Amino acid sequence: MIFIGIITALIACCIDIAIEEGSSAKFAFLKEQVDKCVAEECLVYPFLYWVLLNVVPVVIGSALVVYIEPVAAGSGIPQVKCYLNGVKVPRIVRIKTLIVKAVGVTCSVIGGLAVGKEGPMIHSGAVVAAGISQGKSTTFRRDFNIFKYFREDHEKRDFVSGGAAAGVAAAFGAPVGGVLFSLEEGASFWNQSLTWRIFFGSMISTFTLNVVLSTYHGRPGELTFAGLLNFGKFDNTSYDFRELPVFIVMGCLGGLSGALFNYLNFKLTVFRIRYITKKYVKVLETVVVAACTATVGMGMILYLNDCKPLGEDPTKYPIQMYCADGQYSAVGSIWFQTPEASVRSLFHDPPGSHKLTSILIFFTFYFFLSCWTYGLSVSSGLFIPSLLTGAAWGRVVGMGMEELFPGQTWVDPGKYALIGAAAQLGGVVRMTISLTVILIEATGNLTLGLPLMVTLLTAKWVGDYFNEGIYDTHIQLMGVPILGWEPPPLSHNIYATEVMSCPVVTFNSVETVGKIADVLTNETYNGFPVVDPPLCPDGRNFGTFRGLILRSQLIVVLQHKLYNETAESWSHKGFTIKYFRDAYPRYPTIQQVHVSDEERHFTVDLRPIMNPAPYTCLHNASLPRLFRLFRGLGLRHLVIVNDNNEVVGMVTRKDLARYRVEKHMGRMRLEELTILDR
Amino acid sequence: MIFIGIITALIACCIDIAIEEGSSAKFAFLKEQVDKCVAEECLVYPFLYWVLLNVVPVVIGSALVVYIEPVAAGSGIPQVKCYLNGVKVPRIVRIKTLIVKAVGVTCSVIGGLAVGKEGPMIHSGAVVAAGISQGKSTTFRRDFNIFKYFREDHEKRDFVSGGAAAGVAAAFGAPVGGVLFSLEEGASFWNQSLTWRIFFGSMISTFTLNVVLSTYHGRPGELTFAGLLNFGKFDNTSYDFRELPVFIVMGCLGGLSGALFNYLNFKLTVFRIRYITKKYVKVLETVVVAACTATVGMGMILYLNDCKPLGEDPTKYPIQMYCADGQYSAVGSIWFQTPEASVRSLFHDPPGSHKLTSILIFFTFYFFLSCWTYGLSVSSGLFIPSLLTGAAWGRVVGMGMEELFPGQTWVDPGKYALIGAAAQLGGVVRMTISLTVILIEATGNLTLGLPLMVTLLTAKWVGDYFNEGIYDTHIQLMGVPILGWEPPPLSHNIYATEVMSCPVVTFNSVETVGKIADVLTNETYNGFPVVDPPLCPDGRNFGTFRGLILRSQLIVVLQHKLYNETAESWSHKGFTIKYFRDAYPRYPTIQQVHVSDEERHFTVDLRPIMNPAPYTCLHNASLPRLFRLFRGLGLRHLVIVNDNNEVVGMVTRKDLARYRVEKHMGRMRLEELTILDR
Repeated sequence: MIFIGIITALIACCIDIAIEEGSSAKFAFLKEQVDKCVAEECLVYPFLYWVLLNVVPVVIGSALVVYIEPVAAGSGIPQVKCYLNGVKVPRIVRIKTLIVKAVGVTCSVIGGLAVGKEGPMIHSGAVVAAGISQGKSTTFRRDFNIFKYFREDHEKRDFVSGGAAAGVAAAFGAPVGGVLFSLEEGASFWNQSLTWRIFFGSMISTFTLNVVLSTYHGRPGELTFAGLLNFGKFDNTSYDFRELPVFIVMGCLGGLSGALFNYLNFKLTVFRIRYITKKYVKVLETVVVAACTATVGMGMILYLNDCKPLGEDPTKYPIQMYCADGQYSAVGSIWFQTPEASVRSLFHDPPGSHKLTSILIFFTFYFFLSCWTYGLSVSSGLFIPSLLTGAAWGRVVGMGMEELFPGQTWVDPGKYALIGAAAQLGGVVRMTISLTVILIEATGNLTLGLPLMVTLLTAKWVGDYFNEGIYDTHIQLMGVPILGWEPPPLSHNIYATEVMSCPVVTFNSVETVGKIADVLTNETYNGFPVVDPPLCPDGRNFGTFRGLILRSQLIVVLQHKLYNETAESWSHKGFTIKYFRDAYPRYPTIQQVHVSDEERHFTVDLRPIMNPAPYTCLHNASLPRLFRLFRGLGLRHLVIVNDNNEVVGMVTRKDLARYRVEKHMGRMRLEELTILDR
Repeated sequence: MIFIGIITALIACCIDIAIEEGSSAKFAFLKEQVDKCVAEECLVYPFLYWVLLNVVPVVIGSALVVYIEPVAAGSGIPQVKCYLNGVKVPRIVRIKTLIVKAVGVTCSVIGGLAVGKEGPMIHSGAVVAAGISQGKSTTFRRDFNIFKYFREDHEKRDFVSGGAAAGVAAAFGAPVGGVLFSLEEGASFWNQSLTWRIFFGSMISTFTLNVVLSTYHGRPGELTFAGLLNFGKFDNTSYDFRELPVFIVMGCLGGLSGALFNYLNFKLTVFRIRYITKKYVKVLETVVVAACTATVGMGMILYLNDCKPLGEDPTKYPIQMYCADGQYSAVGSIWFQTPEASVRSLFHDPPGSHKLTSILIFFTFYFFLSCWTYGLSVSSGLFIPSLLTGAAWGRVVGMGMEELFPGQTWVDPGKYALIGAAAQLGGVVRMTISLTVILIEATGNLTLGLPLMVTLLTAKWVGDYFNEGIYDTHIQLMGVPILGWEPPPLSHNIYATEVMSCPVVTFNSVETVGKIADVLTNETYNGFPVVDPPLCPDGRNFGTFRGLILRSQLIVVLQHKLYNETAESWSHKGFTIKYFRDAYPRYPTIQQVHVSDEERHFTVDLRPIMNPAPYTCLHNASLPRLFRLFRGLGLRHLVIVNDNNEVVGMVTRKDLARYRVEKHMGRMRLEELTILDR
């Protein structure tokens, strides 16, 4: 966990610093061009430069994702969520994915897209955890011969949840928030000792990040330096009892706006799955979005005349545009920085820094831009654009409050911007407790805890009335058999016999190599019951259940030719768990294992290898009972037996995930889905 | 959850205000007496008054606990922990317990014992939750006919975990900390929707508390008023990179000191269980402790000459004693307030407010006093005394640092007092993440989060090397079959057949009333397998498993005489789940149900009532597998079947809890314990 924390933080630092330096250079250049061209009336050149400087990095990032590792697209949070839920998502925790993700997100943020770097950082943490805990890298063909004990699905999953937490800790400087994120979004079985290991990793991660970044910012050793807080320090922001209704209303707005966002993004993603399938078209789409982003920015700067006196606003690259001398364009200052810095501006700019209309127009464009951007084939996070959209309309509410209650000390547009940002993000992702803590830690302010909680809870409630959170929507579109937190309602009268797959492919305790090879070739199942053959094999009887054997175990047996005819006994062959640990996690496929015709008649004794007492269930168990067993113990398959302990069927995650509740405008309906296999 | 939050907070407010007013009156009176007697040299009278004012409330509180509801003794956290773990602790969530607890803790704090009110508040929250969620009170014989759906063990347990969280939220003003406490100490199955319900309740609880207390303090509506923070507001307390080793050392000290505390308290508790059994002796012991507390206080005030100029220290009742005019006794100011206020003083008194020797002596006495006090037959919490002890030695460390690094701005004794307090409490209770968050929320300071985490983790590590946390120690002494987070190590070669109880008492699907009545009278089991009788009942065969029936269900069947001979069919008798919900949770005992001799020959068809598909396990399952099933699904009993689905045994929590790991100085040994049935 120490290593995971440190390396995750270092990766986050690299991304952070690369983005900081890249954006800085880009905006400095653009500012120079704009300043020069305002006088010479050649604004089309800075515009073209802007488009170019957006498109080039974005094309690099997009090409990396599309041609090298498509699974690195998006924020990675849905994929990590699936992984923690117990679903194997191919290639999700490989080093290649990590590299593409880290480089890709740097490119997309420098490319000026409406994206953040936080989601990819969380995914990076997960990859780091999966890699380190195994003590070997298959990509680099290196085995450090350490941590062999952890080469097992459950152990690896525990580490991945720790890595995700370390990622959150590094992304937001929020160690407690990281632990809660990992639990709220991922874990199913709360385990005290695991939790404090995760907590330890997150702490190390935050600590490393603070040490590195405080040195980078020229204040080595000052771990409490406020510049390390992502969203700046909120000072003395008190609130009044009577403001709570306002926060609740803002929560509702956030829920509505988030639900709309999710709905539009859902439609867009369906469209993308159907029509944007060619690789070059995917890259082309990102180019269009990148160019549009620059166009919208330039258009707003040109046509919105929002001049403010210099010196008040702490922006780094103020541009004058058509403003009088000593003034700068407030709109330009929002566009000429990274989205994260814009969030900070909206939170901390003094009252009166922005005009109502420009903020409103900014909100409208940015809402649709970020909706269009999420789901593109680039590595991109959703947190920052949602926060920025929310901060914009939150600031509008703040301005309204200033009009309504002039001269009141507690009316601070920055506070409303924070609440609005929380509401919007909560409406989109539907997290409550972890998001509250993350925002508290990222702003360094505890006083606003209660308002944030109220807002986030309301946003979740309102949003949940319309649709699911964006991550769940994307998981559903990925066709992954993820299991919810609770068994689907209205399912109490569905029994195991209806859910299970049957007839089941079973093996006898001593089985011929030929049958094993054939079954592995023809079937895709991952687990097979081992049975005593029925005494009277007339097709109407079942075999008595003896144990469960996994596909991966059978593959290893075939690979090492652990047959009865070639080995005098098992111990002589030196058959140990080492075979399995060495092969983990990338077992060969059945096609890669050669079985000669002679060997097909040999037999294998499955009894020493199989799991002799796996979890089983009776055929008359109800669906909720099966569900709790899968969810509580993280199972992947369950053998269904009848009263005589004979195998009658198998239930897998997919069988359970078929039953989903269709939730539409508050009404519920249980329906059987056809899971798309992609 | 709204009601639970509000009522828990209101109870907390009552306790708070009663203690505040009571202590205030007591100390005002004592100060007056002392001031008068210093001149007249009659200090023995104020001392006697002090003893009297300690003993009287303590006797009331103690008598309530001893004679009315013994289960209300202590902090209640171990009991709540057992309850959430799935063990039924008798009378733990009754209204009588709540009343005794609330009145008792008020008495013991006013009585000047080394106790806090926080633990009892958490227990109160749990009782409130259990009561409200059922919509009826058996004590008051009122049934509001609401929430009938919740009259079931699992639902009730979920609410109790919410109530405990609301209790923490009310005790420390820490809603997030409350949720984490409830998870770290209680829950086993993390459930997203449950969590955010708990979070909601905690939030409501904090909100209500803040509204009431801000009104009480004369600042209505000011929810962010710093006086609402239990431990006062820490301002601008930054720390330096190089201080972290100091924090780690302090964590070690806390771990050592906590381990010593737990060891002494363990020995003391064993002594109490053996020798202090008579009720009047228990009350007498509390009287002795109360008198000793006053004596120690008076002795320290008399013999320690620690005078400080008035006006610097914000104590409410400064006493002059033998100090010069315009000065006050610093030791007196620590003793003449509640322990909670003393903690606040040690955190916030400016540097130089206390003398090294007086703090050291105070620490020594208070450590042993609080160790002696915990486990007395009074309602008492452990948090505040531990924090106070730790704050004392933490301040000593702070003074040492001032000597070592004179003139450094970051050396603040108050900060070291906080770290010391965290280390000591962490060393005693061994919580990490929840305690970090609670302390962050109770001090309103986020900056010190990282130092607190480092300290608490170190304290836990060091402490765990020596013994278990105090709550786990007490649970073990209570003889409750609680299950840990992980299956005991070294248990992979123990199989179900070794763990299970056998032979099992089973019922046939259609059973005679006589046999049911006899079995219920003679056996104490709570669940019975229902079987088809073996075809050849020669004693060597087992019955085929058909389902599981609970003692409570059988009792209801006998109570309502749902026999085959008196009912034409089940539906005619109007047999519904209502029978069970109405009787829940206090089912009659078998002695309260009359079965006539004629009825003994009637039969009962158990099939419509029994659970036809409970979780079962094969006889060759290993102990860790059984353990995960119990822990993950919260089971109380599990039927063990053989290969032919015949019942060969039953495993209960007690069977599993027998296997504990004896941990002694870092070495581990698996041993079978004999659980004490009390």
